[in-house]
Amino acid sequence: MSAPPSTFFRSRWVEVPDGVTEAPGGLPDGFRAAGVAAGLKPSGNPDVGLLVCDAPNATSAARFTRSGVLAAPVVVTKERAQLDGLRAVAVNSGNANAATGGRGRDDAAKMQGAAAIAAGVPHERVAVASTGVIGVPLDTQAIVSGLARAAGQLRAEGDADFTAAIMTTDAFEKRATLDVALPGGGTVRLSAQAKGAGMIQPSFATMLCFVQTDAALSAETADLLLGVTVKRSFDRISVDGQLSTNDTALLMCSGASGVEIAPETEDELRFGQALDALLRQLALDIVRDGEGAARVGRVVATGGDGEAVERAARGVANSPLVKAALNGGDPNWGRIAQAVGGALTDTAPLAIDIAIEGVPVCARGAAVRFDEPALAERVARGEVEYVVGLPGEGFETEVFFSDLSHGYVTINADYTT
Amino acid sequence: MSAPPSTFFRSRWVEVPDGVTEAPGGLPDGFRAAGVAAGLKPSGNPDVGLLVCDAPNATSAARFTRSGVLAAPVVVTKERAQLDGLRAVAVNSGNANAATGGRGRDDAAKMQGAAAIAAGVPHERVAVASTGVIGVPLDTQAIVSGLARAAGQLRAEGDADFTAAIMTTDAFEKRATLDVALPGGGTVRLSAQAKGAGMIQPSFATMLCFVQTDAALSAETADLLLGVTVKRSFDRISVDGQLSTNDTALLMCSGASGVEIAPETEDELRFGQALDALLRQLALDIVRDGEGAARVGRVVATGGDGEAVERAARGVANSPLVKAALNGGDPNWGRIAQAVGGALTDTAPLAIDIAIEGVPVCARGAAVRFDEPALAERVARGEVEYVVGLPGEGFETEVFFSDLSHGYVTINADYTT
Repeated sequence: MSAPPSTFFRSRWVEVPDGVTEAPGGLPDGFRAAGVAAGLKPSGNPDVGLLVCDAPNATSAARFTRSGVLAAPVVVTKERAQLDGLRAVAVNSGNANAATGGRGRDDAAKMQGAAAIAAGVPHERVAVASTGVIGVPLDTQAIVSGLARAAGQLRAEGDADFTAAIMTTDAFEKRATLDVALPGGGTVRLSAQAKGAGMIQPSFATMLCFVQTDAALSAETADLLLGVTVKRSFDRISVDGQLSTNDTALLMCSGASGVEIAPETEDELRFGQALDALLRQLALDIVRDGEGAARVGRVVATGGDGEAVERAARGVANSPLVKAALNGGDPNWGRIAQAVGGALTDTAPLAIDIAIEGVPVCARGAAVRFDEPALAERVARGEVEYVVGLPGEGFETEVFFSDLSHGYVTINADYTT
Repeated sequence: MSAPPSTFFRSRWVEVPDGVTEAPGGLPDGFRAAGVAAGLKPSGNPDVGLLVCDAPNATSAARFTRSGVLAAPVVVTKERAQLDGLRAVAVNSGNANAATGGRGRDDAAKMQGAAAIAAGVPHERVAVASTGVIGVPLDTQAIVSGLARAAGQLRAEGDADFTAAIMTTDAFEKRATLDVALPGGGTVRLSAQAKGAGMIQPSFATMLCFVQTDAALSAETADLLLGVTVKRSFDRISVDGQLSTNDTALLMCSGASGVEIAPETEDELRFGQALDALLRQLALDIVRDGEGAARVGRVVATGGDGEAVERAARGVANSPLVKAALNGGDPNWGRIAQAVGGALTDTAPLAIDIAIEGVPVCARGAAVRFDEPALAERVARGEVEYVVGLPGEGFETEVFFSDLSHGYVTINADYTT
């Protein structure tokens, strides 16, 4: 990694491609955004955000939560929006508009309509997203007037305000603007605003991420790149193994730079790598900001059976015992073995290898001698890596996860609705 | 439920059949047990237990963990013992003999051989079990001399000593002796000793349960009854969703009462109900003794798709958000909806009903008005019941689970190896 000193790319697990430089902020050409306080959050903090793409021929791609219990804005966006040509996004925090039935869907449609008027685009080109408390009807009047006010404040430097409006329990903002020099000679801008911190007191988790670029991408290319990079970022993290009802990730492309990203070119590769680094770092920031989190773990699983590899990695990342050991700075590899065995029932004898921070601690299912004080020192750092080797070769996966701390219990048990 | 005042049957979720009375202790005829301190536990507490059946024609049945990572004693018992004719059990606490490779298997076989000599039975009629730290070689010398000493102390009232020797982080002993009056006129005794409290600091969970009766059961009947009752007890609990490498449940029948439990009789039904009540209460005791646990939850899921019903119930029981809400005495049904949606991906829209302590809070996926203070009072009690209704009918399942508390984090994170 030859990246310049970075304030955004903090993790050793993110590879930043050549040609990527960070800008302090600002949206790509063709985008404007704003965030206002509409009174949904009791704190009075900003809670309604609007983001608009001024290019009539904008392209886009979208990914949503796979939960069986979908929030109303997810249903409305999937059913009533043209996902490959989105030109505006309206988001509120403070209320998830989830488990709100038919009224919730009507409210989300009203929000979509109000945003269309505010942004001056057809309603089917507007995506809506919500995050916050569930089971409570949305105050659409507050949202409609908030969106009208936001429309008057839209600006190219509005990404920080927009980010503030989508935050809930986030301890820090998750936002970046990157300039990407492409091998073909062009330079494009890529920006993103995300939120997420495990889950929202007093209700549940939501991860939102909005990405913009002034590059010109076909809707198919945008969809392909978003799909691949989401799979390598937001699909690979777990704060508490709990899937939200509201998760939404959108990529919007204005084309305003005049630089086209054509399929199967060096430019597409570079752009895809930059998007990948951006989303991976944002995903890691969500884990790092996991409720009460002190450390971030990465488990890498390898083996000859892809499904077993995936289950083993998820089993480790979601084990409260492993997560508590990570919190305690405890190189307790027995919990890794136990979590893998529990995830892969009826497969004994399982000859697993385990390494922590590069130090082998278990080989073919049996303990290995290692320098315990040295390893204890390594697992007390901010990022800890576990490698689980299952028999065979050909498959490898990874999951990033937060630790389990007193802070998590405090946030989720001590404060009641 | 017309059961007499009980010190053992504490839960409203256990139905005790007529004819069952509690005895203060003591094993059924034909059994003797002992427990001694052999030096495996740094505390000096008892850590080696021996239980012997004096009937040459004893029958038995066994169930083990399905983990892909099996501890050596599980492997040795499954491979080298006659599971339908066990006459002795040797158990140690303080060391799980797990992830110990070929040496671990040799050590477990040595333990089996030493117990055979101590008990005066063939080695293939001895089961071995271990619980404690993992990845550490077993001190077989201590175990061999401990077993020899235990042999000299075997007695019919040795169940309490045996129970003490198998405990690890258990906060209270899990042991009962029941006399069961059968409809056919006979009376048989049923006793059990269990241990388990989520997981063992500094390593991982183990649940052990040893059951004895002086009734005469064919090995097939014993296997059938143990299989059904384990499925309704130890298979339905979760402290932290973490399957152990060492879980073992054994039923041994001496036949010394002269009362035969014949298949498909009223006697078999009554005996089975008593065994069911016994194991369910022991399972609930393990949950109640879950590390740091303050409350026990029961989730009942119903619907037309058996696999979905099971996944929904497990999803709720293992959700750290639901468990933290249980700890906080918070009637936060949004977390139930979220956990079900996360467990049943790609099934939206899911019209779920949710009731807490009999109070409907969500109907067909949408919030229902309810008396919040009244419900808050009910969920602050020791046992809380959640009912999740998925569409359709015909399937119902339940899972018992502990809450997630500061105590759990303290036990699993703050103390390091």
